[in-house]
Amino acid sequence: MRAQLDVLKQRLADVHNLNRAMAVLSWDQHTYMPPGGAFARAAQTATLSRLAHDIFIAPETGELLHEAVQEIPEFQPDGDDADLLRVAKRDYDRAIKVPTSLVTAINEHSVLALPVWVRARQENDFASFAPYLEKTVKLSRELAEHLGYEEHIYDPLLDEAEPGMKTSQMVSLFDTLRRELVPLARAISERLDRVDDAALHQPFDEAKQEAFGRMVVERFGYDFLRGRQDRTVHPFETTFSRNDVRITTRFDPAWLSPALFGTMHEAGHGLYEQGIAPSLEGTLLARGASLGLHESQSRLWENVVGRSRPFWEHFYPRLQETFPQQLSGVALDEFYLAVNRVEPSFIRVEADEVTYNLHALLRFEVELDLLRDRYSVADAPEVWKQKMEEYLGIRPPSDSLGILQDMHWSGGVFGYFPTYTLGNVLSVQFFEAAVREFPEIPDRIGQGDFGALRSWLTDRIYRHGRKYEPNELIEMATGEPIQSRSYIGYLKTKYGAIYGLS
Amino acid sequence: MRAQLDVLKQRLADVHNLNRAMAVLSWDQHTYMPPGGAFARAAQTATLSRLAHDIFIAPETGELLHEAVQEIPEFQPDGDDADLLRVAKRDYDRAIKVPTSLVTAINEHSVLALPVWVRARQENDFASFAPYLEKTVKLSRELAEHLGYEEHIYDPLLDEAEPGMKTSQMVSLFDTLRRELVPLARAISERLDRVDDAALHQPFDEAKQEAFGRMVVERFGYDFLRGRQDRTVHPFETTFSRNDVRITTRFDPAWLSPALFGTMHEAGHGLYEQGIAPSLEGTLLARGASLGLHESQSRLWENVVGRSRPFWEHFYPRLQETFPQQLSGVALDEFYLAVNRVEPSFIRVEADEVTYNLHALLRFEVELDLLRDRYSVADAPEVWKQKMEEYLGIRPPSDSLGILQDMHWSGGVFGYFPTYTLGNVLSVQFFEAAVREFPEIPDRIGQGDFGALRSWLTDRIYRHGRKYEPNELIEMATGEPIQSRSYIGYLKTKYGAIYGLS
Repeated sequence: MRAQLDVLKQRLADVHNLNRAMAVLSWDQHTYMPPGGAFARAAQTATLSRLAHDIFIAPETGELLHEAVQEIPEFQPDGDDADLLRVAKRDYDRAIKVPTSLVTAINEHSVLALPVWVRARQENDFASFAPYLEKTVKLSRELAEHLGYEEHIYDPLLDEAEPGMKTSQMVSLFDTLRRELVPLARAISERLDRVDDAALHQPFDEAKQEAFGRMVVERFGYDFLRGRQDRTVHPFETTFSRNDVRITTRFDPAWLSPALFGTMHEAGHGLYEQGIAPSLEGTLLARGASLGLHESQSRLWENVVGRSRPFWEHFYPRLQETFPQQLSGVALDEFYLAVNRVEPSFIRVEADEVTYNLHALLRFEVELDLLRDRYSVADAPEVWKQKMEEYLGIRPPSDSLGILQDMHWSGGVFGYFPTYTLGNVLSVQFFEAAVREFPEIPDRIGQGDFGALRSWLTDRIYRHGRKYEPNELIEMATGEPIQSRSYIGYLKTKYGAIYGLS
Repeated sequence: MRAQLDVLKQRLADVHNLNRAMAVLSWDQHTYMPPGGAFARAAQTATLSRLAHDIFIAPETGELLHEAVQEIPEFQPDGDDADLLRVAKRDYDRAIKVPTSLVTAINEHSVLALPVWVRARQENDFASFAPYLEKTVKLSRELAEHLGYEEHIYDPLLDEAEPGMKTSQMVSLFDTLRRELVPLARAISERLDRVDDAALHQPFDEAKQEAFGRMVVERFGYDFLRGRQDRTVHPFETTFSRNDVRITTRFDPAWLSPALFGTMHEAGHGLYEQGIAPSLEGTLLARGASLGLHESQSRLWENVVGRSRPFWEHFYPRLQETFPQQLSGVALDEFYLAVNRVEPSFIRVEADEVTYNLHALLRFEVELDLLRDRYSVADAPEVWKQKMEEYLGIRPPSDSLGILQDMHWSGGVFGYFPTYTLGNVLSVQFFEAAVREFPEIPDRIGQGDFGALRSWLTDRIYRHGRKYEPNELIEMATGEPIQSRSYIGYLKTKYGAIYGLS
């Protein structure tokens, strides 16, 4: 007998299908929707979102979870169904802790705060945004209290993005990164003129950019029969099914990097989703394990692979053939340096591999301090500027280039920024584990062959979907807990060579 | 007090939003979805469809309808809310008459029958499809019995497409058409060589075809800020909101007609939807009044306008500029004849204005006869061939070119085909009524100005959405019931001149 399990699975599948339909609506909104469509789209999304939430948190879901668990041991104690029940139970227990009124308040806050933030950033007017940031802090605290925590008020917020990950882990990780990367960034800052990236800033035909990027990610293994690529202002990856995984790209006709590395980045997310086991299709396990795990794959394919020397040994001659006028006079060595240029800058999304995590660190620290009331929201802009000076040696001339640059704090609650750094750190930890097992991977990359790497990633990470929490999955995949040793070693070796540091 | 009305409106809005979300999913499926996405898309659509149906037919909807009606008289006895309640009540009363098991049976039948039909048509194998057509007849009868009828078993099926329209009206309409159009088609058949359309069959650059079609429908008044045009195999119009109305087009690089007239046709549907009153937005009134009314607009813009002499007087010089190589040697007169070429042919979707309705008539008669068991499904292919000989003077050499050509009978139940002819008949009745009121319309069309025509159509038809049943709306708009006099007169005059008939 598994009658209740089947009823539960249908119920969870409905929630899943509503969420996937919302993803289609959102994809359309960001790619093809005409301007007039926005208002009705918001109403459509609101209905689907409310129905999905109501169905999921209904007491019937809890009862079915309770009853279905009893049916499990009889036939499949550790199969997909058992995993599904475990993760569904975790999601359900978490969801019912949060009053619907708070869910609504957070949603409404983000709707109201977003246009205020847009205007505040445009006009460098932090004061107008401050009350909204205060509300974000207040709602974050309320959410954390409802979810509950033992160690740190940030734990339940981080847990939303990274199930099972602890703030203490992040503090320790960022401490190491600060200690190692601030001096590295400083040393490079004294030698910025060693690398020139003018070669990347030339006119590049967009259709040719697109064809080249497509060729690269097809070689990675991104399957266009189960995906597609469209244009958008803010690129993203979105999943409607493991067999319908879409990426979007922004093309700059005068700068090669955004589309080229952006395509690899989003295809990295896409490879993860296309690699989830078919048996998990249609369930809430059919997603990446966490935001950080997801980012580890986008960064691995974009940076660890796509900005590596072996990669360009294979692909640079092809890029030169595509853009002979622009690149025939640029040597491989010079191009490799250009795509790895480091420069401390104000804007996170434009940051290089070395300085990126210092941006994330700064935000993490501000979030912790505001949550614990170490200083007021009014003081935060100055804290931001001081930390930028301390970590990157540059002081933003305005709040628009400082605390107002990210949309995240207008879009809901705290807890998101650490996932960027988790992604960076894990990208190298995973890559090195793969190379330990298949030492030929770098040579293969130098031949344009990514099969061994992708197989390892699929087997160790992708296929499991959300079955395991990040800490479990990292240890299963690499044989050790998350560690920053590999990542720091990678940065020091790579950028030490590029910038001639001892 | 209008508490219950507000609750009802939110409930109906949820159903509406689920239906609109399904339309987005379907649009994506037919335009951009990669091949891999089909299976998951079916599951997503099934969930949304079931939720929409369950919410709508729930007893709570009936109770709210009952209670909300009492709240109406106090503030707005004949406003949008009263109309909404009236139409919602009609939809609800109709929906609850049909057992969910029958809804499911019809859906499952169409899923199973479609691939059988596809193969049967490919292989000219009617026998394999016959059991499925029998099932279509059986399900159509069951549906009709559940819905109930007084005069004719076909009435409730026709009512699904054309609320309030009666089979007796259609029989009388088709009788007149048969009497008038069979001789007209026969007379033309004897003079087919008077018109040559070779000018349309040349290589035409697709991007230029697209730009020209876009220019034309923008001139009609189709608003691309509230719509867009994409490519698809089987063109359609779909609505997500009056401010997001999309059309799709198929381009043939060697034939001008499919994209050119197809764009006008779908834009005609689109103009209807874009013209619905803003006050109806988000409700179940925000749709065309019926399938026939909708088709009247696509046919009006495609044929009555787009195949008229004044239209081409204005646009032909522009088309010649667009395609000088192909058309500079083709005179306006010659081109006008080419786009109005008549030729009896086997396939409905390729039929011209004169013969099209004879195709629809044939299907209507076969549906009536099968429902009333006048002959068996096994005999229907031969009946089809005989009727084709009788009406069009040609006998299909195969069932693939005969009874197997349309997908409709594999896709659910009977009742759809008459709407095509209703659309044709009404297109001229509406156009003539508009010209009676604004006699300058033909001259304006000759100047490429469609404002007066569009204003009349918007005021008399478009803005009302589904508020009125077709028979009411036709009489309100034109001052008389539906009549075929205008349509037959139009065909006789136009094609009499083209083919030199006395």
